Amino acid sequence: MDFFNTKSIEEVYEEIDKRVDNYNIDSEEIMLIDAIGRISAEEVKSREIVPSFTRSTVDGYAVSCKDTFGASSTIPSMLSIVERIDMGEAPKREIKSGEASYIPTGGMLPKGADSVVMIENAEELDDQTIMIYKAVSDGSNILRRGDDISENSILIEKGKAITAYDIGVLASQGIEKIRVFRKLKFTIISTGDEIVDIDDDIKSGQIRDINSYVIASDLINMNHEVVDRLIIKDEYEKLREAVKKGIDNSDMVLISGGSSVGTKDYTSDVINELGKDGVFVHGISIKPGKPTIIGEAKDKFVFGLPGHPASSIIIYNIVVKSSIRKVLGMEEKEKFAYCKLDSNFPSSSGKTTYQMVKVYEKKGELYAKPVFGKSGMISLISKADGYIKIDSDEEGIYEGAVRKVIYI
Amino acid sequence: MDFFNTKSIEEVYEEIDKRVDNYNIDSEEIMLIDAIGRISAEEVKSREIVPSFTRSTVDGYAVSCKDTFGASSTIPSMLSIVERIDMGEAPKREIKSGEASYIPTGGMLPKGADSVVMIENAEELDDQTIMIYKAVSDGSNILRRGDDISENSILIEKGKAITAYDIGVLASQGIEKIRVFRKLKFTIISTGDEIVDIDDDIKSGQIRDINSYVIASDLINMNHEVVDRLIIKDEYEKLREAVKKGIDNSDMVLISGGSSVGTKDYTSDVINELGKDGVFVHGISIKPGKPTIIGEAKDKFVFGLPGHPASSIIIYNIVVKSSIRKVLGMEEKEKFAYCKLDSNFPSSSGKTTYQMVKVYEKKGELYAKPVFGKSGMISLISKADGYIKIDSDEEGIYEGAVRKVIYI
Repeated sequence: MDFFNTKSIEEVYEEIDKRVDNYNIDSEEIMLIDAIGRISAEEVKSREIVPSFTRSTVDGYAVSCKDTFGASSTIPSMLSIVERIDMGEAPKREIKSGEASYIPTGGMLPKGADSVVMIENAEELDDQTIMIYKAVSDGSNILRRGDDISENSILIEKGKAITAYDIGVLASQGIEKIRVFRKLKFTIISTGDEIVDIDDDIKSGQIRDINSYVIASDLINMNHEVVDRLIIKDEYEKLREAVKKGIDNSDMVLISGGSSVGTKDYTSDVINELGKDGVFVHGISIKPGKPTIIGEAKDKFVFGLPGHPASSIIIYNIVVKSSIRKVLGMEEKEKFAYCKLDSNFPSSSGKTTYQMVKVYEKKGELYAKPVFGKSGMISLISKADGYIKIDSDEEGIYEGAVRKVIYI
Repeated sequence: MDFFNTKSIEEVYEEIDKRVDNYNIDSEEIMLIDAIGRISAEEVKSREIVPSFTRSTVDGYAVSCKDTFGASSTIPSMLSIVERIDMGEAPKREIKSGEASYIPTGGMLPKGADSVVMIENAEELDDQTIMIYKAVSDGSNILRRGDDISENSILIEKGKAITAYDIGVLASQGIEKIRVFRKLKFTIISTGDEIVDIDDDIKSGQIRDINSYVIASDLINMNHEVVDRLIIKDEYEKLREAVKKGIDNSDMVLISGGSSVGTKDYTSDVINELGKDGVFVHGISIKPGKPTIIGEAKDKFVFGLPGHPASSIIIYNIVVKSSIRKVLGMEEKEKFAYCKLDSNFPSSSGKTTYQMVKVYEKKGELYAKPVFGKSGMISLISKADGYIKIDSDEEGIYEGAVRKVIYI
């Protein structure tokens, strides 16, 4: 591997961008109630105007506002009640000057009315007469036809991760089904002679597989599919077979370990052997995560992640997840916060540094505390809430500086 | 309903707290790989020390640091290579003064060595001799036995929502299964003569059910189970039957609509009829969301949410989700950010106001923009990123003030 030719993280994103169009992910139509977290494969426009009629937002009396002008608790306006409107029914009577109709919250405004007096500001003298104690203006306490959703407006953009609120908007339209991208398929391979699986006995010099569990469960959480999760010894043939099968069965192959400058480094050779373009990123000038390789075989991305859990997880977050978003045409939308650093953060000049942090609150301010440790440590990651990116031209950041924390 | 006896949101939380112990949710043991997003029902302690042996964090040469003191590119230290350590194997040779062993990243440190010189800072003269160009100190480039996870340390607290990173920590321990709380079961009922389902034709005066879709998909997203989702006309008997069945089949029943001061308000009576304590919250002094009722029947919570989507969703977020967390003994952990308000935010004095906002970034600062609109509007909600809580003794907030935004 040519480690003297590392790329910056920005160059890596450009290389990914160049090849993203090789993907052409199918879509499928699913029921709306199953769509949470899936990625919309279509732009959805409104079909129905919401509300489809002008409706009251309170319990009260539908009136023409002119009839309430000057009304107060000492000099109320007195109006005739001409109808009691039922929920879900169209009013039968038009309101004329001097008239009012009782209307429940959500009820349809009768013709001739332009506003609603809240029940708290009115009192019925008898069945036919209502006293109004407070004036209303045109449009008070009503939601006009189309106020919420107008005709032919864009409800969901293509590439949007569908939220519960999007589902509400689509439900309001009577849209029962939505076209989403199919789940992406992944093969995750952990390599290394020292790696043993969760149910194996552990011998001296060995460690348990961690990366494939973290990455697989995060992918599943994002509604993707892990078709295979394997541990492969550092043998060229075995790795080649596993990656080949992975490329055939999945959309992306993630290999962790085996990309350091060790003697048993076959990942790069395997990717190059399996197809064009082969490896196009030989190391990234970031910390942690330098020994990352990225290649393409049969138009599919193959990522060689570092073996250290903390490094592997940073690369998964900043490179793999970003590639998934690009393949599905998703917008980059991360939850983040600006936080004050509670101590000095060192960085490696010339390399973009990603520092995991814990976020906490003190006296109405958010602080970020670095989660320090060596890159092999998994316990660190589970204590972190997010990370800070320190640019390659910075020589660390001083205590008290305010920086953006990307939540993980 | 006694709307002159509304409770503050703090009082509502106290009332919920008093009754949470009536729940006793069973747990189940599941495979680790399926545990993402589930709630741990046990405190999990470490079983295995990680790493179980002192290991190298780089490719290099295991040495005694004393042997490198003073080494530089002009005056290198020269050491004898006594072994090439294999990954996953225990070293066969102890290091003595003047000796070094080649060690790969993750390899087990041999006895006698206390540090590792990176491959970049060394050069092999021949098979048996290595030149060291840079001194290392005790502990350089190694991770000591137990550095990551020590014996009997707490890995997962009871009540924690399990993340991908927690799964990594448990995998490192060979913990294949974890005990989690079973999924909570919910019945969601939308009431109202004007409400029609997603696949019905819509007539004048009617609107489609929105709330049950939003809430059901959010609950499913949190790994809970929606056993029933119903639309019930405003008829006492039908509502009573639906709520009774809901209480029998689920852990909580959510009713939306039917809790306004309208003539067809049966929710309160139904809850009171079905069992103790009956309704214990008759309205909350917040905006939006005032017409909320909360009761208990057969030791289960029944929530009467407002019918307006925006109000209903606020109450779902601040009351129902908080109750779920309490029932499962989860810590309150919300993602939030401090944002500068980009305009004046009015509020209702005497009521805690929840203002939905959109979060955006400008020149390295986060801003919150109010998503204004009437409480019946669903389109607003899907545009919001979170909400700001304005306390009851505030009379609104001025542009430029910095406030906490809770992400939804």
